[in-house]
Amino acid sequence: MKQVKVSNNVIRRLPRYLRKLDELAADGVDKISSRQLGEELGLTSSQVRQDFNCFGEFGQQGYGYNVSALRAQIAGILGMDRGFSAILLGVGNIGRALMENFCFSDWGVKLAAAFDIKPELVGTEYKGVRIYAMEELEHYLDTNRVDMAVLTVPKAAAVPVTELLTAHGVDAIWNFTNVELTRPNSSTIVENIHFSDSLLSLCYYVTERRDDAAKKEDK
Amino acid sequence: MKQVKVSNNVIRRLPRYLRKLDELAADGVDKISSRQLGEELGLTSSQVRQDFNCFGEFGQQGYGYNVSALRAQIAGILGMDRGFSAILLGVGNIGRALMENFCFSDWGVKLAAAFDIKPELVGTEYKGVRIYAMEELEHYLDTNRVDMAVLTVPKAAAVPVTELLTAHGVDAIWNFTNVELTRPNSSTIVENIHFSDSLLSLCYYVTERRDDAAKKEDK
Repeated sequence: MKQVKVSNNVIRRLPRYLRKLDELAADGVDKISSRQLGEELGLTSSQVRQDFNCFGEFGQQGYGYNVSALRAQIAGILGMDRGFSAILLGVGNIGRALMENFCFSDWGVKLAAAFDIKPELVGTEYKGVRIYAMEELEHYLDTNRVDMAVLTVPKAAAVPVTELLTAHGVDAIWNFTNVELTRPNSSTIVENIHFSDSLLSLCYYVTERRDDAAKKEDK
Repeated sequence: MKQVKVSNNVIRRLPRYLRKLDELAADGVDKISSRQLGEELGLTSSQVRQDFNCFGEFGQQGYGYNVSALRAQIAGILGMDRGFSAILLGVGNIGRALMENFCFSDWGVKLAAAFDIKPELVGTEYKGVRIYAMEELEHYLDTNRVDMAVLTVPKAAAVPVTELLTAHGVDAIWNFTNVELTRPNSSTIVENIHFSDSLLSLCYYVTERRDDAAKKEDK
C-alpha cells in the first residue's frame, strides 16, 4: 500500500487522526470531509488529503471519508493489527502509572511481562501482568518474542538495560528515562517520552508570549 | 536577542541541546565544537550552527562553544530563569509520578500547588506540595499567579477543567490527558504528552522495519 518514504511529520499526525476518528465515531459521525477533519485538528484540507495520499486512495472525491473505514486503514498503517508484544522494565511510579492507566491493548500492543529488581515485587502480578526479576530478563528474551521494551527504569540503569535488550535482539524501545539512548549507527528504534523537553518547550512558548505582551505594552 | 520567528523544529531541539550540555558539563567537558555537539545528537554541524544563529552569536569561529556559557544562553531562551509558577490538576498515578519523580525546579518551574477531588488527599502535602480541593481552584487562580497548569485529571474532566483554567487567565497547559484540547482560535498554549501517539509512532517504525525485512527475505 505504501508508495513513498513517508516523512516523520506525517507519521506523527497519524495517531492524531486516529484519536479524532475514534471521537467522531463515538459521537455517531460516520462520514467526514477533509476540510472538517482538518478543522478539528488545526490542519488545512489539502494537508489532510496529502497526508492520506502517502498511503494510497482513502476517500471518494466529493463524498469525504467513511469514518470507520478510514480508522481501520490508519490502524493498519500504524501496525495496530500486528499483535506486537511488549515488556516493561522498571515497576516504579511511572511504570506503575502506565500499567494501571495506559491501556496497551487499545493500541494493539500486548504488555506481556514486567521486570524489576525489588524482591517484594518479583513474582507478583500487577493489573494482570506478571513481574519478573531483572535476572530473569535474558532468559525471558531468549524464550519469548518481544517486539518492544518500555523503559521505565531509573536513569542509571537506562544504558545497561538497553545494551542487554539490544544484545538479545530487541530493536525497539519506548524510552521514559531522561537519557538520550540514540547512538550513532545504532539500529535500535528509540521513541522518547522526554517530560523535561516537553515542559521546556511549553516554557519557551510562554516566555515568547510574555515577551511579546511586554513589547506591546512598551509601545 | 531573538532575531527571527524561530521554527518549532528548532525550539524542540533546544531542550535536547540543554540536556546534552548538562551531560558534557557533568563529564568535565568545558568546550565543544558544533561538529562534536552535532555528532552527539545525530545532527550535522551546520544544522547546529543554524539553530543557534536563530538567537544570535553563541560561539567563536574556530574555537567552538563554551559549554557552561552555551547552557546558560539556552536556559535563558527557554525561560528557565523566569520563575514560572505551575499548578497540577489531578493527583492520580500520573500526577503522583510527576510530583514524586519529576523535578520541576530543575527546569526553573515552581510547582506551587496541586488539586484533587478525593477528600482523603485534600489538605495533605505530597513531596512538599499542598493538595487543595478542586472547589478551591477558582479562588486560588484569582489570588495567585499561575503561569501554567499540569493537567493530569481523568479524561472526562479534561475539557471542563481547561475551560475553568482559561476563564481565569491560565494560558498554558501541559496536557497529560489523552484529549485533544487545542481549539480553533483558542489563545491557550497547549503542550501535549500523548502516550498513545508516541507508542503508535513506535509501532509504525517497527511495522515498517518488519515489512522491509520481509521484502528482503522474499527477494
